[in-house]
Amino acid sequence: MDYQSLLQKIYQLTLSGENPGALADYIPELGHVDPEKLGVHLTTVACDQYSVGDSDERFSIQSIAKVLSLSLAYQLEGGEIWKRVGVEPSGTAFNSLVQLEADRGIPRNPLINAGAIVVCDILVSRLSNPKQELIEYIRKLGDNPHIDYCPTLAESEKATGFRNAALINFIKSFGNIHNDIDTVLDFYFSLCSIKMSCRELARTFLFLANNGRDVVSNEAILTLSQTKRLNAIMQTCGFYDEAGEFTYRVGLPGKSGVGGGIIAVHPGKYTIAVWSPRLNSKGNSSRGMKFLELFTTETASSIF
Amino acid sequence: MDYQSLLQKIYQLTLSGENPGALADYIPELGHVDPEKLGVHLTTVACDQYSVGDSDERFSIQSIAKVLSLSLAYQLEGGEIWKRVGVEPSGTAFNSLVQLEADRGIPRNPLINAGAIVVCDILVSRLSNPKQELIEYIRKLGDNPHIDYCPTLAESEKATGFRNAALINFIKSFGNIHNDIDTVLDFYFSLCSIKMSCRELARTFLFLANNGRDVVSNEAILTLSQTKRLNAIMQTCGFYDEAGEFTYRVGLPGKSGVGGGIIAVHPGKYTIAVWSPRLNSKGNSSRGMKFLELFTTETASSIF
Amino acid sequence: MDYQSLLQKIYQLTLSGENPGALADYIPELGHVDPEKLGVHLTTVACDQYSVGDSDERFSIQSIAKVLSLSLAYQLEGGEIWKRVGVEPSGTAFNSLVQLEADRGIPRNPLINAGAIVVCDILVSRLSNPKQELIEYIRKLGDNPHIDYCPTLAESEKATGFRNAALINFIKSFGNIHNDIDTVLDFYFSLCSIKMSCRELARTFLFLANNGRDVVSNEAILTLSQTKRLNAIMQTCGFYDEAGEFTYRVGLPGKSGVGGGIIAVHPGKYTIAVWSPRLNSKGNSSRGMKFLELFTTETASSIF
Amino acid sequence: MDYQSLLQKIYQLTLSGENPGALADYIPELGHVDPEKLGVHLTTVACDQYSVGDSDERFSIQSIAKVLSLSLAYQLEGGEIWKRVGVEPSGTAFNSLVQLEADRGIPRNPLINAGAIVVCDILVSRLSNPKQELIEYIRKLGDNPHIDYCPTLAESEKATGFRNAALINFIKSFGNIHNDIDTVLDFYFSLCSIKMSCRELARTFLFLANNGRDVVSNEAILTLSQTKRLNAIMQTCGFYDEAGEFTYRVGLPGKSGVGGGIIAVHPGKYTIAVWSPRLNSKGNSSRGMKFLELFTTETASSIF
Repeated sequence: MDYQSLLQKIYQLTLSGENPGALADYIPELGHVDPEKLGVHLTTVACDQYSVGDSDERFSIQSIAKVLSLSLAYQLEGGEIWKRVGVEPSGTAFNSLVQLEADRGIPRNPLINAGAIVVCDILVSRLSNPKQELIEYIRKLGDNPHIDYCPTLAESEKATGFRNAALINFIKSFGNIHNDIDTVLDFYFSLCSIKMSCRELARTFLFLANNGRDVVSNEAILTLSQTKRLNAIMQTCGFYDEAGEFTYRVGLPGKSGVGGGIIAVHPGKYTIAVWSPRLNSKGNSSRGMKFLELFTTETASSIF
Repeated sequence: MDYQSLLQKIYQLTLSGENPGALADYIPELGHVDPEKLGVHLTTVACDQYSVGDSDERFSIQSIAKVLSLSLAYQLEGGEIWKRVGVEPSGTAFNSLVQLEADRGIPRNPLINAGAIVVCDILVSRLSNPKQELIEYIRKLGDNPHIDYCPTLAESEKATGFRNAALINFIKSFGNIHNDIDTVLDFYFSLCSIKMSCRELARTFLFLANNGRDVVSNEAILTLSQTKRLNAIMQTCGFYDEAGEFTYRVGLPGKSGVGGGIIAVHPGKYTIAVWSPRLNSKGNSSRGMKFLELFTTETASSIF
Repeated sequence: MDYQSLLQKIYQLTLSGENPGALADYIPELGHVDPEKLGVHLTTVACDQYSVGDSDERFSIQSIAKVLSLSLAYQLEGGEIWKRVGVEPSGTAFNSLVQLEADRGIPRNPLINAGAIVVCDILVSRLSNPKQELIEYIRKLGDNPHIDYCPTLAESEKATGFRNAALINFIKSFGNIHNDIDTVLDFYFSLCSIKMSCRELARTFLFLANNGRDVVSNEAILTLSQTKRLNAIMQTCGFYDEAGEFTYRVGLPGKSGVGGGIIAVHPGKYTIAVWSPRLNSKGNSSRGMKFLELFTTETASSIF
Repeated sequence: MDYQSLLQKIYQLTLSGENPGALADYIPELGHVDPEKLGVHLTTVACDQYSVGDSDERFSIQSIAKVLSLSLAYQLEGGEIWKRVGVEPSGTAFNSLVQLEADRGIPRNPLINAGAIVVCDILVSRLSNPKQELIEYIRKLGDNPHIDYCPTLAESEKATGFRNAALINFIKSFGNIHNDIDTVLDFYFSLCSIKMSCRELARTFLFLANNGRDVVSNEAILTLSQTKRLNAIMQTCGFYDEAGEFTYRVGLPGKSGVGGGIIAVHPGKYTIAVWSPRLNSKGNSSRGMKFLELFTTETASSIF
């Protein structure tokens, strides 16, 4: 498969098409990004790399990082984790709080805010220095010591994060947060502040396309079964209230962030990261979704 | 892969384990089934067949049939169908009516009752003799002229189908039902009354594992892209409020019915049908879910 | 109290002000009414009568009639009625179906559609000729043999009444409708089709201002306690999702209908009926609400 | 009316009947109260006083205090207050958070927690020393310099108040909290910690039965219109999800607290305070509701 030509072709097609949607703007750092940015990077499990556009520019990966904290917590806790968070798609965005009420503080899945906060609480209980240990875990996955939190961004998130504060207080009222609220929130906002380029993102997630093993060292990050299950969760829960649409149009497990990034995983084959900052009404990158739809259609490489 | 030995092994394991859950009993026909029945049939795209237990006994496939009516409607309407029904998982079971209100009569996906009723309405508009043409379509898919509706069952459904009558009236109040309510409901209840054995079920769905083509005639039922998308919809929407759980545990697109049947599709490889009448609290076959989880774990054949 | 001068003064004030809102138009009969109509009639328990404007023109009283069917059912069933319908305000309009689901088919109160349908079901069980006996009951309350159903209107309601059909089917799915759906709905649509003038309306409701007794014959329609409780229900449940607003602004128990009518009851003193067809966004007469607010403020005659 | 004999009679009747329900126990201070306590105090607008049982023992009035903070805010802000909080009953308890989402941070009424928190925010904006000025206002209403906050109770509320913290953060995310969250919450928890006896409670609320004027000094606390409207709000919103039931059974405006207290107001006549700590499933005093129902039935003194 001549991935490079194909990426190039879809890149031109995408650039020449419209660029609908709007930047996330609830914090200044996201609102000031150049909306015309478009980067794509594909890495195969054989470590072949292909890229186009702004693939080496770092951006805020935001919620995409929730897969990485989940991976660490899953590795540490195993199946016990599912006692505190579910694996079902969240349904409509608006009812995340209703759902928490109905399910007595058990978030519907680990990739919505409520669930990611519970995962952070689990890591705070498990790790002696959560922020340090998590970033080291991610650096190891990405084979890159330079991946880091962005303190300015984390601070901005915190200053406007009343809804997340509402969520964590609500969950704690049901007893499903075990640690101090400020400690957990601080960790959560740091998690969401991580920046990576498309290249770094594709590399970091590569173990999920490689049966849970690092492609270079062959070290097992997760077991085969755990890896498949993590991919499965991305498939049903990775795109807010648009998980069905992404599954339908793209057909790969993936995760998006409001910074405009999307990572998608083709088990056994490759990971592909796309970045384009304008978001559709559901909060997912418009051009990113379109790019991946064209890509999996052309390559007939959806998993279905 | 020695499928027969594996089926045999898991079959024994399942029989020796517990058989939790309860029969659907809202109509007598479902409540009178022997709860100890257990049948499995796997057919590969090369037409190799493997089976254990009560795999040749017919049972009510119920909602599984919704995939077949959707397939026909999708073939007839193409992407236009998505103007009238969505592709998102439904979220909590309880809010199906809320959702219809919020989305102004557009059901969240075509595999929940509301969506399947809209698909029936589309077929009633499109076909001159809907019941006849649908069953012929299904017989062709299954290469089997004996597949049929069960009029007694359809009659029972109708006599107790007040909630479905509520749904269709509610959808019509938003203008998303174009035909006479009684005609559409009658067609819908017939659809749900179809009976098949595991063997028949696996054969009927085989085109979805074969890029949309009949394995014998090679005739295209759906295009490759349509096939992948239909599988994607099963993945995110096929198990009521347990789609995430099934995706997580089994990792294959599939569809269940309250008769205790489950069909799962491994694109490019096989279809597998399981039947065990006791349902868990979410309305899916308990032993069926368990059997498939063991099967895809043993064969490492989840699509993720 | 010089009611006539006051009515005249507020009438002029109201006419010279704006006339915001829109006609109900889901059936032609309501959409064709002259939106400038404004009628008011006040009758005291001493039978003094005061009126202004179009007070003798009949209009469709719609949901106002639900108080009358409730009165008859309450008289026949007593407190048993509250096993099948509640007495709580409905909360937001949009969740009437959610509520039915949460409360297993028990409507929140007898003055929303769902509850009035259950009341109709009770009357169908109790009466040998429901339509005839109900209209005779109402004629007796109003001391007027000419009050009647409007068959054309009832027919129109029926032809477009898919949401009410949804409601009754949904309630029946929980077992809280005991009779044939079509029979109950037919009765319900007739109930909603009754026409009265403001004068007739004020007279018909006068027993509720007179301790449950007819002002002329002194016959007890309801007991004192039942009367107070019926008024209490109107107070908390009479104005859809605007019961609090009406209580706050007007301070009298009352009931509105989408035909633009409002009846309000001052226990021990008077009833007052207003009619102005334009409705606010909550479905209550805009000018009617305004008129009554000015009236009870000027007379300091709210019950609070 | 021989109120004393009647109170005595109903008191005996109540004591000899069952005492169902349970103590609020989310904070130790409420869980340790003697559940057999029963006190009643009635004060007429002529200052005649009648009492039975534990009417002079102080208890935590909890949410009853929300009427007093509302009264002060209403006096200071006038009708402007309704831009930030509604006057509609809340519907089902469970959806208070849903409602906030649907209404973009505008609580449904000022007597549910969310609304009372917004009222506290208004007072924090208006007053230079909110805690001090509020308690002085209440002492003046009650003609009693000894009424006070209970710091231990306030501290307990704070330590377990995660749900209230969730509410205020959620409301602030919509911009409807203008001050620092900790400051407002601290004030709110103090408000809820006030203790009074039935005698004190009846006296403090007496202005609401006396057209807004103090019965001794004749000073206007609120205007006549404001008084009627405050009573109206208590009628529709004073009993959580049981406002309709209280209106139906008792027929007076009133407010309850989870400490087991209830205050009811008969405009123009009297106030009556009841205290019995066991709560029904809706969070209102079981015996308190029963006592008041018997009382208004015997005296035929519901306002309806």
